[in-house]
Amino acid sequence: MSEIRQDPHSGRWVIIGGERAGRPNEFLEATTRPRDLPCPFCAGNERETPPPIATFGASGTHRWLARVVPNKYPAVAPEFAAFGRHEVIIESPEHVASLSELENPELDAAFLAYHSRLRELGQSGAYQYVQIFKNVGPAAGASLEHLHSQLIALPTIPEAILTELTASAAYFKQHGRSQLVDTIAAEVAAAERLVAQSDSFVAFCPYASRFGYEVWIAPRKHQPQFEAAKPGEIGELARLMRDLIGRIECAVGPVAYNYYLHTRPFDMPAHDHYHWHIEIIPRLTKVAGFEWSTSCFINPFPPESAADHLRSSSPRLGRKSN
Amino acid sequence: MSEIRQDPHSGRWVIIGGERAGRPNEFLEATTRPRDLPCPFCAGNERETPPPIATFGASGTHRWLARVVPNKYPAVAPEFAAFGRHEVIIESPEHVASLSELENPELDAAFLAYHSRLRELGQSGAYQYVQIFKNVGPAAGASLEHLHSQLIALPTIPEAILTELTASAAYFKQHGRSQLVDTIAAEVAAAERLVAQSDSFVAFCPYASRFGYEVWIAPRKHQPQFEAAKPGEIGELARLMRDLIGRIECAVGPVAYNYYLHTRPFDMPAHDHYHWHIEIIPRLTKVAGFEWSTSCFINPFPPESAADHLRSSSPRLGRKSN
Repeated sequence: MSEIRQDPHSGRWVIIGGERAGRPNEFLEATTRPRDLPCPFCAGNERETPPPIATFGASGTHRWLARVVPNKYPAVAPEFAAFGRHEVIIESPEHVASLSELENPELDAAFLAYHSRLRELGQSGAYQYVQIFKNVGPAAGASLEHLHSQLIALPTIPEAILTELTASAAYFKQHGRSQLVDTIAAEVAAAERLVAQSDSFVAFCPYASRFGYEVWIAPRKHQPQFEAAKPGEIGELARLMRDLIGRIECAVGPVAYNYYLHTRPFDMPAHDHYHWHIEIIPRLTKVAGFEWSTSCFINPFPPESAADHLRSSSPRLGRKSN
Repeated sequence: MSEIRQDPHSGRWVIIGGERAGRPNEFLEATTRPRDLPCPFCAGNERETPPPIATFGASGTHRWLARVVPNKYPAVAPEFAAFGRHEVIIESPEHVASLSELENPELDAAFLAYHSRLRELGQSGAYQYVQIFKNVGPAAGASLEHLHSQLIALPTIPEAILTELTASAAYFKQHGRSQLVDTIAAEVAAAERLVAQSDSFVAFCPYASRFGYEVWIAPRKHQPQFEAAKPGEIGELARLMRDLIGRIECAVGPVAYNYYLHTRPFDMPAHDHYHWHIEIIPRLTKVAGFEWSTSCFINPFPPESAADHLRSSSPRLGRKSN
């Protein structure tokens, strides 16, 4: 049985379920990374990257835990600062491949780096939006294995954010409340798609998940901008994110994934109805001709079963023996 | 140098160029298909698929050249005919993997199958839109190697088509002409992004190509619906499509690709300003966190250079020796 659902936050349509999860795949795919390849992101190879924009370390030591460097192969022209910038956030001095492997101080440093870069780039007044995102695994578009995130600062607000702002504004006009805050309260009450909770954050599989095991994380209380989160909240979020990635890896095995932050654009206080959140999209299935032609996604994994599976999964955290 | 472009037909934003085409990739990816795997789509294995909905053969023989069968793993529920249907168009009795390998009678049969299924499903009155698409190669979402297309008949008009109809309607209101027909005339005149032409069709790399070596094919004269094309035009289109896939494979080597048809929905004569076309999207790069988070694409291959490269490429057609 399949079902067509629409995501109220983006307007996106998704075909959920169907019989496609069981279809055979005759291709064998293998991805390897040559063992002897030097990694430009490992401690000791700092000269392989441009000089850092910022570093985040353990207090009382000179050792870095996260480094922010310009992307050597930028998507946006570095010649014109106002046109955009493209930075890489290297998230451990050691060669780890997934967020689930980070130790607490590294985890804190990575999420503080997001927070700090957003604040600084917002205050510069040069950009309208900063997109922070992570690609893990070649199927998710990563070209380097060493755990890192990226940020692209843009002179305009991206289409996907504009679409969400429009839906959020319409909801606020009608109900006088934030759309996503209401969604979170409903997900917590129904519990069917709930995955995990902490004091300040809720994680759930969205009703119209485009991808199998897609998870959204948002603050429980209304907060338009990620930059407004307090340091304690950032640490709490970081631990919840690691837990969620660990649960996904436990549920479906090692998997490529992306995650990205959606937050209110700089200098748009009129859009304070918007609620920041992070979307995790595991890349279990390939996006194919139907999705590209229609903008409608086919997701063979109903979010209700995915959430149930994730709730009962035990994340295996810490360094993997390679 | 990178440049931000917007596609006038869909409103999509694309970052073109930048320095990403030269970035290193430390992952080695290998895809293989076990040699001894029986293929359910090859002649002789017809009982591996459900009974055909239609077959297309050479006149005077009993041999089929294209077969249309229900998808055994449908994305849309087959229990409710009005909710949708999912069919597979098998495009050769022999085990070929790309459109460039088809012989003339097979090529004609495949495109006549699209035409015939669209006409019949349109006349049934049960659906608003039929999406025809092809996935070639695992990176494009194919799970079987044997060349095939798919169609999904839908009770509603997909979001991507609605968006194009809206842009086309606004253009028609302002100019009194079809938007895509005007684009084609401009591309033919400028010649910069032109790839190939035949009597009735034009192929070009669109100004805001999302994917490297993306090519659109459309009739030169205004035609809202693919179903209105004449049999001679269908054959001409089929040969041009094979030529284009051959050129792409010559330019970039064996590559995964999707193509799909965009046509005016059934029973919407008010949208006769719309112009049907096919979009070919080679899958040279992975879609990653930035694209999913922003709906803005990064395309490191400018369409002007891609078109130049495709114009000078010689397609190698016919069966590949495996």
